[in-house]
Amino acid sequence: MFDRAWMLIIMTTVATSVLMVRSFPEADKVKSLPGQSDVSFQQFAGYVAVDDNNNRALFYYFVEAQTNPASKPLVLWLNGGLGCSSVGVGAFTEHGPFLTNQGQAIVQNQYSWNKVANILYVESPAGAGFSYSLNLSFYKTVNDKVTARDSLVFLQRWFAKFPEYTNRDFYITGESYAGHYVPQLAELIVKSKVNFNLRGIAVRNPLLDLDTDMNAVDEYYWSHGIISDYAYKISTSLCNSSRRYRENFSGHHSTDCLVAAQKVSEEYSSTLLIDKYYVIGDRCLSYNLSQASFLSEMLNLGTFRLRKSSHNVQQIEDPTDQPIDECNLKYSEMYLNRKDVQKALHARLVGTTDYRLCNKILQTNYERSDIEIPTTDVIGFLVKSGLRVTVYSGDQDSVVPFMGTRRLIDGLAKKLALKTTLPYTPWILDNQVGGWTQVYGNQVTYATIRGASHETPATQPRRSFVLFNAFVEGKPLPKAS
Amino acid sequence: MFDRAWMLIIMTTVATSVLMVRSFPEADKVKSLPGQSDVSFQQFAGYVAVDDNNNRALFYYFVEAQTNPASKPLVLWLNGGLGCSSVGVGAFTEHGPFLTNQGQAIVQNQYSWNKVANILYVESPAGAGFSYSLNLSFYKTVNDKVTARDSLVFLQRWFAKFPEYTNRDFYITGESYAGHYVPQLAELIVKSKVNFNLRGIAVRNPLLDLDTDMNAVDEYYWSHGIISDYAYKISTSLCNSSRRYRENFSGHHSTDCLVAAQKVSEEYSSTLLIDKYYVIGDRCLSYNLSQASFLSEMLNLGTFRLRKSSHNVQQIEDPTDQPIDECNLKYSEMYLNRKDVQKALHARLVGTTDYRLCNKILQTNYERSDIEIPTTDVIGFLVKSGLRVTVYSGDQDSVVPFMGTRRLIDGLAKKLALKTTLPYTPWILDNQVGGWTQVYGNQVTYATIRGASHETPATQPRRSFVLFNAFVEGKPLPKAS
Repeated sequence: MFDRAWMLIIMTTVATSVLMVRSFPEADKVKSLPGQSDVSFQQFAGYVAVDDNNNRALFYYFVEAQTNPASKPLVLWLNGGLGCSSVGVGAFTEHGPFLTNQGQAIVQNQYSWNKVANILYVESPAGAGFSYSLNLSFYKTVNDKVTARDSLVFLQRWFAKFPEYTNRDFYITGESYAGHYVPQLAELIVKSKVNFNLRGIAVRNPLLDLDTDMNAVDEYYWSHGIISDYAYKISTSLCNSSRRYRENFSGHHSTDCLVAAQKVSEEYSSTLLIDKYYVIGDRCLSYNLSQASFLSEMLNLGTFRLRKSSHNVQQIEDPTDQPIDECNLKYSEMYLNRKDVQKALHARLVGTTDYRLCNKILQTNYERSDIEIPTTDVIGFLVKSGLRVTVYSGDQDSVVPFMGTRRLIDGLAKKLALKTTLPYTPWILDNQVGGWTQVYGNQVTYATIRGASHETPATQPRRSFVLFNAFVEGKPLPKAS
Repeated sequence: MFDRAWMLIIMTTVATSVLMVRSFPEADKVKSLPGQSDVSFQQFAGYVAVDDNNNRALFYYFVEAQTNPASKPLVLWLNGGLGCSSVGVGAFTEHGPFLTNQGQAIVQNQYSWNKVANILYVESPAGAGFSYSLNLSFYKTVNDKVTARDSLVFLQRWFAKFPEYTNRDFYITGESYAGHYVPQLAELIVKSKVNFNLRGIAVRNPLLDLDTDMNAVDEYYWSHGIISDYAYKISTSLCNSSRRYRENFSGHHSTDCLVAAQKVSEEYSSTLLIDKYYVIGDRCLSYNLSQASFLSEMLNLGTFRLRKSSHNVQQIEDPTDQPIDECNLKYSEMYLNRKDVQKALHARLVGTTDYRLCNKILQTNYERSDIEIPTTDVIGFLVKSGLRVTVYSGDQDSVVPFMGTRRLIDGLAKKLALKTTLPYTPWILDNQVGGWTQVYGNQVTYATIRGASHETPATQPRRSFVLFNAFVEGKPLPKAS
């Protein structure tokens, strides 16, 4: 896994970084975002080159904590996708200080995570959001290892820009395919022995193990009324969804799987009519489904050899122009496409005419075999290295359902021989159940957020904030009194 | 099942009823309910004796359709419970013309079912709501057969009061334990050959088969994050919940079941912290849990030999006096306890000092062996008799979860050799998925209402109204265009 020659490059970069220590970069300071209200905290945004020879640079948006930033930890946020934007999704629709509203204004988010931490949103890998590679051959070789290495180089150079943060308590967090990015970056940091004060990771609705996660999708659809007993039986007995996925991409189709795909396709295609990331909620009717992230398409059985079925689904325009919560991703994309917003953020469009929440080039070209490698053992390594680990799930997400994640973390704890230190139990907020949680060895926390989508803060902002706060403070989730 | 001697009694009553034909009973007319706004339709309420010798009478609340009542069908509504009030639950928190609001006012319900039908709410059996038996020995013999017979006698005498409705298209509907009441009453009507124009039945989140329904509770808890893989495994492998229920009431406890009950009790007791009838929603904090219906307690594994565990759950007073939807049952109970409301409804409290939504005496004394007899075959008889049958589920109810109901109806259709005439598919309202549905033999419809609780109209009023309208009009649920 780890390359000694490459470690030398990191060490050299670290040495260079130390020589570059200086105060916060004035050029990256965001004076004000179009539409924002007055705030007391500082914001920065800009680029950090991660490959000088090949003109590859990652974009970041950094918001200091609203009060006493010097006393608060540093938290890195990475969206998944693959290839989705941490700024467009994480910052502006989930837990940043401002949320977009129809693309014309931004409003303060009362549950912004920068109330308790300094948050660094990074667009990773190059190609995601405002990050770029001028050398297009990068997209033919991008994989989990490249993503982790670029992120590490980014961090080294970013810490050189923000030396005050170098020894700050540091956490890496993310969602969805960041179930690969986050543990792998943390592992690289630990193994590289770079001078970061990494304390823990938190991942949400993460892709950890393709088989378990993908087959949990069937389980979730069935137990939430989305498919019938019949379709579920065919899928589980004849050819389950992970096998169909593997056959689809290998090009070798067994008769069983073709029969199963044909039989279940009718019911699975109905999932195009709901928001798979938020099955209890409304679907944003004016948002082009083709912009939905890769992970959903990958896990959607209806697309197996049957993509043509989607032509039956009529795209219906939103009859009103009123703000609707379920369209927050659309508004975020509209906002970040504004030239004045890009200027204020020091962002550039490189090799593209529009900013997109998720990059299809990355989604098409990313190393597929990496997607199939489980990252649970990487998390096991982090646990053994002493890091605090929180894995949690919005329970209304069918794309990476909590049922698979819960099973994986319980299995990992058993493998690591961690004892249950808090049995499966509800956690409580405002006298209501915020979700359920189980803690292993006082170090690994699994939790759900009740009623929350894949993007938990967008649908359960207060519960998500309380869970995040418990994570960074290393405190248990609140219990019934 | 059917008693020929008793049929004679019914026939005699019918003959008597015909002689009693007269215009609508002025004495039962509800002039106005405290707090109601002006409406164009007529309301009636009062008592119909069902056993003259034993002073047993059922209370009804009848609302004519808002427009052209003469052209609209008659729909009987029965709540379940056991022993819960059709007026307090069905009419004032679900689909009646008025909904209560903090017990001080009532508001018009824009999705009232009396927009498309004349609705007859009946408190059944005696002991439920405002219905009563002066002879208390009734409660020692009350069972499904008695309930059905009393309901039939009620209907005969009610039709005598409202002769215009005698030949009207007639439907029987209800929820929860009415999964017993509704099919059994319909069966009795068919077999008695009384002169009712019964066209169909609709039951929602119905108890149809104790084993399937009760074991679906475990399945639902597990797949909705309420219990862990571990608790689910113990329950399904060692001693499932229906077996625990049977052992609990038989008094013969196997070691396996005692071990399972002990092991799972910790997790199952956490269900006291959520609204089991609406797992996605908030719990009404100011409402005494002990008033929750019998069915929930019966199906709640946490109560198995472990009732004492509930003392750990703190009752927390609602911090505000603002109206909160999740407390609608409480407001309904408050409203119906008002003396001016009771006077307006011609309701009396007989043998009780307070009106209660559900009667614990009935819940304690009702014939337990009847609870264990499946009613699926009764529904099968109705189908073969040509009645239209709709069985539907709010998908956020864990008390009688859709997973068990879906399985039971699919199994019944197979037993009856009914072909699927509409495969499992979403139905659409306002361009969103209203739920999923499957139709068998163009006669039996199964459907879910997405995002709805046990009392579907309380949480998804528009979707519930559209489903009800489709049922009475005999039309399919709306599809994607």
